[in-house]
Amino acid sequence: MRIDDLLREYRSVWALDHARSLLEWDLEVNMPVEGAAARGEALARLTLIRREYLLRLKDLVDKYEESKDLNDLERGVIRVLRRELKYYTSIPPEILEELDRTTTKAAVVWREAKKESNFEKFKPYLTKIVELEQTIADRLGYEGHPYNALLDLYEEGFTVNDADSVFNKLLPNLKTILEKIRSEGRFPERHPLEEVPYDVNVMRSINEELLKILEMPVGSRFRMDVSAHPFTISMSVNDVRITTRYEGKDFRATMFSVIHESGHAMYELMIDPSLEMTPVGRGVSMGVHESQSRFWENIIGRSREFVHLIYPLLKERLPFLKDYSEDDVYRYFNIVRPSLIRVDADEVTYNFHIALRYEIEKGLIANKLSVSDLPSLWNDFMDKYLGVRPRNDAEGVLQDIHWSQGSFGYFPTYTLGNVIAGMIYAKLPQLKDKVINRRFNEIREFLRDRICRHGAIYPPKELLMRAFNDTYNPDYLLNYLREKYLGG
Amino acid sequence: MRIDDLLREYRSVWALDHARSLLEWDLEVNMPVEGAAARGEALARLTLIRREYLLRLKDLVDKYEESKDLNDLERGVIRVLRRELKYYTSIPPEILEELDRTTTKAAVVWREAKKESNFEKFKPYLTKIVELEQTIADRLGYEGHPYNALLDLYEEGFTVNDADSVFNKLLPNLKTILEKIRSEGRFPERHPLEEVPYDVNVMRSINEELLKILEMPVGSRFRMDVSAHPFTISMSVNDVRITTRYEGKDFRATMFSVIHESGHAMYELMIDPSLEMTPVGRGVSMGVHESQSRFWENIIGRSREFVHLIYPLLKERLPFLKDYSEDDVYRYFNIVRPSLIRVDADEVTYNFHIALRYEIEKGLIANKLSVSDLPSLWNDFMDKYLGVRPRNDAEGVLQDIHWSQGSFGYFPTYTLGNVIAGMIYAKLPQLKDKVINRRFNEIREFLRDRICRHGAIYPPKELLMRAFNDTYNPDYLLNYLREKYLGG
Repeated sequence: MRIDDLLREYRSVWALDHARSLLEWDLEVNMPVEGAAARGEALARLTLIRREYLLRLKDLVDKYEESKDLNDLERGVIRVLRRELKYYTSIPPEILEELDRTTTKAAVVWREAKKESNFEKFKPYLTKIVELEQTIADRLGYEGHPYNALLDLYEEGFTVNDADSVFNKLLPNLKTILEKIRSEGRFPERHPLEEVPYDVNVMRSINEELLKILEMPVGSRFRMDVSAHPFTISMSVNDVRITTRYEGKDFRATMFSVIHESGHAMYELMIDPSLEMTPVGRGVSMGVHESQSRFWENIIGRSREFVHLIYPLLKERLPFLKDYSEDDVYRYFNIVRPSLIRVDADEVTYNFHIALRYEIEKGLIANKLSVSDLPSLWNDFMDKYLGVRPRNDAEGVLQDIHWSQGSFGYFPTYTLGNVIAGMIYAKLPQLKDKVINRRFNEIREFLRDRICRHGAIYPPKELLMRAFNDTYNPDYLLNYLREKYLGG
Repeated sequence: MRIDDLLREYRSVWALDHARSLLEWDLEVNMPVEGAAARGEALARLTLIRREYLLRLKDLVDKYEESKDLNDLERGVIRVLRRELKYYTSIPPEILEELDRTTTKAAVVWREAKKESNFEKFKPYLTKIVELEQTIADRLGYEGHPYNALLDLYEEGFTVNDADSVFNKLLPNLKTILEKIRSEGRFPERHPLEEVPYDVNVMRSINEELLKILEMPVGSRFRMDVSAHPFTISMSVNDVRITTRYEGKDFRATMFSVIHESGHAMYELMIDPSLEMTPVGRGVSMGVHESQSRFWENIIGRSREFVHLIYPLLKERLPFLKDYSEDDVYRYFNIVRPSLIRVDADEVTYNFHIALRYEIEKGLIANKLSVSDLPSLWNDFMDKYLGVRPRNDAEGVLQDIHWSQGSFGYFPTYTLGNVIAGMIYAKLPQLKDKVINRRFNEIREFLRDRICRHGAIYPPKELLMRAFNDTYNPDYLLNYLREKYLGG
């Protein structure tokens, strides 16, 4: 390849990313608790070293950017590196260090504030973080709305205009769907299985069976562990790991976290191996990544066909299912209920939680909202969108970790994941047939071909156009939900 | 501290070492098998990056080396960094890369050659490695024997003269001790328990109890896992990890690997926390490190008092011990038998295996021996030292991995570990009393005070003089062995 010298140099950055990934995975999965201080220092140092090695690539990126005869892969490499260089060169290191210091403290304060349901405690940190995010947006530069600069960090090229048109389409239609579901009563709002405790070892064995059903390459290229919060991490196209957790009751939760994270893992496992150790050997955006996890979790995992496939296994291993039919389990997996907590929300109500966060972030970054107004604003939005009202800030504005980490611009990608998953559902032929006959290989090959194998070669909008001749179009998601919840 | 700027810069090197340690630990303990290629590349890159960051310290080290008013810690830091700089600056990178390439291939070939018991297959690689080690010795420089340059890499300041005087004292006396043990027949040469299979889960639970008895800080600063070969690794004074393995029979093996590795781990856990992230926050040498593991494994773990302590636990959990008394178990733990394989050797015969390797390495590096002569030379040595003769090269010259890795100069530190463990035994008051009463804390505090807390502040000979007013003196080990095997 013509850009060989650049790719060779890049391998040091890749190696540092590989190491940081393992350090973070180990931190959540294995590390003795008192190892935290040393681990934090090591991660901070490695981040600075990575920055230095990345900045060294600037001259080569400048040189190749001029070149007219690059192929798709080479253009992708230059595009991804240019974005990274822009981040490091336009934001002064002192700003990033200040953000780092602030969020490190804010994470601790947020945890306490949430426990005490005391927004006032968190307010000064959130105020400072919003200011820093505004500065970062200014330094990065933007066209149109300043929030565009932050959205772009998580979903390249995605703007406030795009988001507005997604939510403007989604919300009224979801509202109609939700009202119909509730009036028809075909899907429950509560289910007794939510309260039934399980044996952790039994659920562990069921999760291992799920990995077999999903044909995950356990031991050869993949592994599953336990951590406080489920996540996926990739050290290589041949070393991808997920975690789950066991909360002790409501057995759906651990199962669907396994299927969700396996979706993320499949994306990383299906990136073309020739992209390994290059800047494009990764998922292209948070939204596209989330589309894979949500497609497997919701569209496949919560389908009648998948329930049919796994019901015998569940029945055999979970004695408390003795009086529950396959249909009961299907309904338990598909409870629809306006609720206060995002992470517990179902397919139908989930995007309202995101819309609310999107509106707040957009307003904060543009200085149209004040941090002081957030608690009541939050509660009013919940009322308006879902007809429920938090009793306190712990189940309202303090529920998510994201803002304490400075992750402004991240939330909308959850909805993009749902939207893109709907597009996949529409375009993947005979999905139900494939699931019922365990032809998961054909599903994987479709996803590999359209999305995964390309890594980050194309920016997300181009990738979606190539794959589906459409971008972030919520109609497919709405059709899917209507079909599932209101159809036949 | 006056050398603050140097220590601050050094933290990047430390962070890279922290990361490399975790990458290596994970490689042995967790990694999905196909992740090996990416892991190898990441480790190689991180090693190069570490080299670059270390070399950046040269000017500061030069500057402080001139300074007259350094304290012990500062002098230690400069000494350790000077040694590292010397290694990188006196050996051309091409030589290190060639050694790396050669040993990577040699490790594979050695495994095959051992399986086929075919020394000829390994010979060209070993020849090449010996040449490279000779070059490295020349580049490093030495006084007296060229092998001194290599010994110094593993045991700072240790020379052929030192080694000769250790072995010249040890071997004839060990021979006499061994003959007496065998003629008196008080310790068995075989034991039926060697062949009894065990339940892995039961042995796992016994090992966990052993960690409790040894008061290891499981979960807070320490953990134990499983790998193909037991080892200890330290990521921080607050994050030290060991591994063991379960071979399915001869239950001593996994137990004593746990005690052995716990000894290594205690060393790292007892380094003064103020040395964390500095160049002296590590064990000072391989010999001193091995003294900790062998003291805990052999002198404590195989003692009558320790057996008395754990016999009830073993009896309770291992049904096959029902017809074996405490004394039977003690004798099983202390089988003495001239044998062919170093890693299976007992306290009395072990150092003969090392003496043989020492003589061969010394001769090879000085060009007084030829690689072609090794198989017969090996077998003759075994005959002379222990009266046993390998039937083939797999149980002779091909048994160890070390030479395929280019670790010339490493073997003698195993004997130094035994010798220093004997010195500790002689100097630690009322050891038997402390063990029988489970006053392990007092044993740890003695080791912490004399050895562990100092990290690498003093070179090993100085550390031993400060601790015991003596260095590498084998008399104590001989006295210990006479007392245990011939006494009372």
